[in-house]
Amino acid sequence: MKIDLNSDMGEGFGPYRLCDDEAMMKIVSSANIACGFHGGDPDTMARMVRLAKANGVGIGAHPGLPDRAGFGRREIPFQPDELRQQMLYQLGALMAIAGAEGMKVGHFSFHAAMGNMVNRDPVLADLMMNAIATVDPRLVVFVTPESEIERAAKRAGLKTLALFLADRAYDAEGRLVARGLPGALVKDETSVRARVRRFLTHGQVEAIDGTIIAMPAHSILVHSDTPGSLELARIIRSEIEASGATLAPAAEHAA
Amino acid sequence: MKIDLNSDMGEGFGPYRLCDDEAMMKIVSSANIACGFHGGDPDTMARMVRLAKANGVGIGAHPGLPDRAGFGRREIPFQPDELRQQMLYQLGALMAIAGAEGMKVGHFSFHAAMGNMVNRDPVLADLMMNAIATVDPRLVVFVTPESEIERAAKRAGLKTLALFLADRAYDAEGRLVARGLPGALVKDETSVRARVRRFLTHGQVEAIDGTIIAMPAHSILVHSDTPGSLELARIIRSEIEASGATLAPAAEHAA
Amino acid sequence: MKIDLNSDMGEGFGPYRLCDDEAMMKIVSSANIACGFHGGDPDTMARMVRLAKANGVGIGAHPGLPDRAGFGRREIPFQPDELRQQMLYQLGALMAIAGAEGMKVGHFSFHAAMGNMVNRDPVLADLMMNAIATVDPRLVVFVTPESEIERAAKRAGLKTLALFLADRAYDAEGRLVARGLPGALVKDETSVRARVRRFLTHGQVEAIDGTIIAMPAHSILVHSDTPGSLELARIIRSEIEASGATLAPAAEHAA
Amino acid sequence: MKIDLNSDMGEGFGPYRLCDDEAMMKIVSSANIACGFHGGDPDTMARMVRLAKANGVGIGAHPGLPDRAGFGRREIPFQPDELRQQMLYQLGALMAIAGAEGMKVGHFSFHAAMGNMVNRDPVLADLMMNAIATVDPRLVVFVTPESEIERAAKRAGLKTLALFLADRAYDAEGRLVARGLPGALVKDETSVRARVRRFLTHGQVEAIDGTIIAMPAHSILVHSDTPGSLELARIIRSEIEASGATLAPAAEHAA
Repeated sequence: MKIDLNSDMGEGFGPYRLCDDEAMMKIVSSANIACGFHGGDPDTMARMVRLAKANGVGIGAHPGLPDRAGFGRREIPFQPDELRQQMLYQLGALMAIAGAEGMKVGHFSFHAAMGNMVNRDPVLADLMMNAIATVDPRLVVFVTPESEIERAAKRAGLKTLALFLADRAYDAEGRLVARGLPGALVKDETSVRARVRRFLTHGQVEAIDGTIIAMPAHSILVHSDTPGSLELARIIRSEIEASGATLAPAAEHAA
Repeated sequence: MKIDLNSDMGEGFGPYRLCDDEAMMKIVSSANIACGFHGGDPDTMARMVRLAKANGVGIGAHPGLPDRAGFGRREIPFQPDELRQQMLYQLGALMAIAGAEGMKVGHFSFHAAMGNMVNRDPVLADLMMNAIATVDPRLVVFVTPESEIERAAKRAGLKTLALFLADRAYDAEGRLVARGLPGALVKDETSVRARVRRFLTHGQVEAIDGTIIAMPAHSILVHSDTPGSLELARIIRSEIEASGATLAPAAEHAA
Repeated sequence: MKIDLNSDMGEGFGPYRLCDDEAMMKIVSSANIACGFHGGDPDTMARMVRLAKANGVGIGAHPGLPDRAGFGRREIPFQPDELRQQMLYQLGALMAIAGAEGMKVGHFSFHAAMGNMVNRDPVLADLMMNAIATVDPRLVVFVTPESEIERAAKRAGLKTLALFLADRAYDAEGRLVARGLPGALVKDETSVRARVRRFLTHGQVEAIDGTIIAMPAHSILVHSDTPGSLELARIIRSEIEASGATLAPAAEHAA
Repeated sequence: MKIDLNSDMGEGFGPYRLCDDEAMMKIVSSANIACGFHGGDPDTMARMVRLAKANGVGIGAHPGLPDRAGFGRREIPFQPDELRQQMLYQLGALMAIAGAEGMKVGHFSFHAAMGNMVNRDPVLADLMMNAIATVDPRLVVFVTPESEIERAAKRAGLKTLALFLADRAYDAEGRLVARGLPGALVKDETSVRARVRRFLTHGQVEAIDGTIIAMPAHSILVHSDTPGSLELARIIRSEIEASGATLAPAAEHAA
């Protein structure tokens, strides 16, 4: 079995850093690169592309809302076409920077509020996925299983790769427990290790109420901007390797 | 003879407008579209692409320094690779937005301080032109005749199109008279008309000291952000049509 | 009777202009100066202060949300204390710039979405008005009659000045008809002139359904960023002068 | 003897942090608070003011150039009056935020390139210092001994407090060794401790060439954005306390 391990990267800006991108790039198989709106800038994007190239890591666009101060986490009432142009702008920007380094953007992963807004609105999701397909029909779209984005991506003829978030709790319906709620974040290493093992072995996860549910994912997202995220990423990687699965960038997965 | 008539467009932002882009798009054959750094934003860029498509106008990237308040006119000491990534970022952004509308970016034209910095430094000029060639080797680069950018573009294997600025004075060596100096701007319609006619007929321009010099250009740039620019553009277009030359977008010129 | 005529000013930015501030400053008695978030910048603010000083016009802070691209018209979910600090930041900035020119900020007027958010929430309105009172208890707050801001300003011990919008329709309850709805904007000069005359003579306005309602205001706001706004402002000023009322800046009104 | 220990603080932005402001605020006697241009934002400024208040720390404005991506370290060719308005804007913004918390801004300290530009130009220095004096003549200005800013501040009637940078090398003329040069940064704790001790005991510092020069300062600046800065600050504070000097905020120093 092929498994992808990915993280959001290059989300710093100017003098600011949110994570140790150099170290994280040695652990993951795919990097979701911030594209200068919620985080990142042209210089940081190029640095990420070069790091990815040096480490054999696949790269993807990680566009967000134009709201650096809010880190793209606040929903701002943009019109559907505005959101579409913001997404295209960021995707194209990364494609050119990557191209000049001889790299290809292989996947696409929404950041925070932009993704939430799209995931709630099938019409908007179609608009966005069709736009992506026009730019590059081979892009693999990262999705939450059974989400609007997954359905729209398939309608647009795009490949998808479903994500499992090893450090976030799910409810019995397979939805993420909202960040503010108790138990939403899974922090201790033993629990994360157990969750990853169950996911790799059985394709399942234990929901917050104890129910065992299916987790039809082939990619694990590890956050990079929390304390201990590097150690967590190393644990997940060691579990993947121990399981006999093959670590592979998103673009090498068929779907 | 083919002549291109072009203008910098989409340089507004949010609620702000610098020119009547809708009207100008009916006059020019090529539009240099601001890419969101010194002016423009994703939404405006898409609007420009759609206007160009509707009017049969060729589109080009018009990247500038990330300095909206200074309109990209202030030189800021960026490192060469920072400038390169800023340029690639903007070029790629427009390519994706254009691609989603079924349009192709056909040319490239630096804005203000970014262009001045590149034109002064052959090493930087090579760095920039080689980067462009990697992204799309068919892009036509707008140049000042006999400039560093022209030479670097040719070394990189890129086609170039030399610009004649009908409303700016030249010195006897063919260089633009700096904006601040007396006589730098040619404003009255009679003079502009005479200059365009001489350029179209003889490939020459009268320098500020009265010398007649060669003007080996095939494209006329008309500013869009000055009072009377629309009327000036209409005059130039009528002169081109009266001269028997064919108005053609930059990308249709061979070089 | 004293009447104030005011307009939002200095809402341009860098190379951009939204109105002819020089001309408008000769017509109004008070200027609501944008403070660099939704529009304006330090340089423009200083220019407005100097223009106001030269024309004997009173100055006020016109703070908005930090959203230049959206011109402060989009509601963004900031926390109450974030909004409060954004407001204080802008108010203080103008106070220092004005102080260095020997001018005093005399009034306060929210811009667009920031005002709408405050006007809907009495707790937030108290938070904001108390903060203003701490900075300068003599500031006059521009209000819609019978609004949350008016009530909160009075609770905070601040003077208020109620606004009449001559070019916007009201409903029978005295609320502004939303911009999108038919008839919301009153554009023709005859109607505006008649409305101003009725307001000045009887303190009344004809609502959109024909009802005559009380308009307990002493200040008329004229928009500066619409075509024809200068001419409209001149008409209103001439009506004020013809009525025998005295034009006086906001800070000279008692309340 | 009274000694001030100060640090640049609140230079983070949105999700970004450059230092542990909470910990640093327990060590210093004065905080130079970033004002939202090169770093900081209204929310962070209010947090710094509250932390300072809780820890009995004096607060000062630390304005910089409007260049977040370059952290205010790049010189940008602004006009003198533009720089003046940018400075006033930031100073006033902090004054209002502080005022609403019942705190007074007591000192003023330029950040990076803005300071460098002013320190090189006596006419600009006068322009800036006179502007500060107009806003609040009691502000204490942080200066390099024998600098243009020191002289201009005195001409403007402002009090000054000279800074000793414990972790930066000086040349025999008392100027800072430029950051890029070898030995410019003094990093090891033993050296820093010895330098602080000599400064406190004899008012002297050993220059990079071994010369012992006078250091007529009464305030020590410790950087907050370098690894180990907190520990360095603790060492300096312990040396100050061991020397018998009294730690006192900038505004409590007479000059």
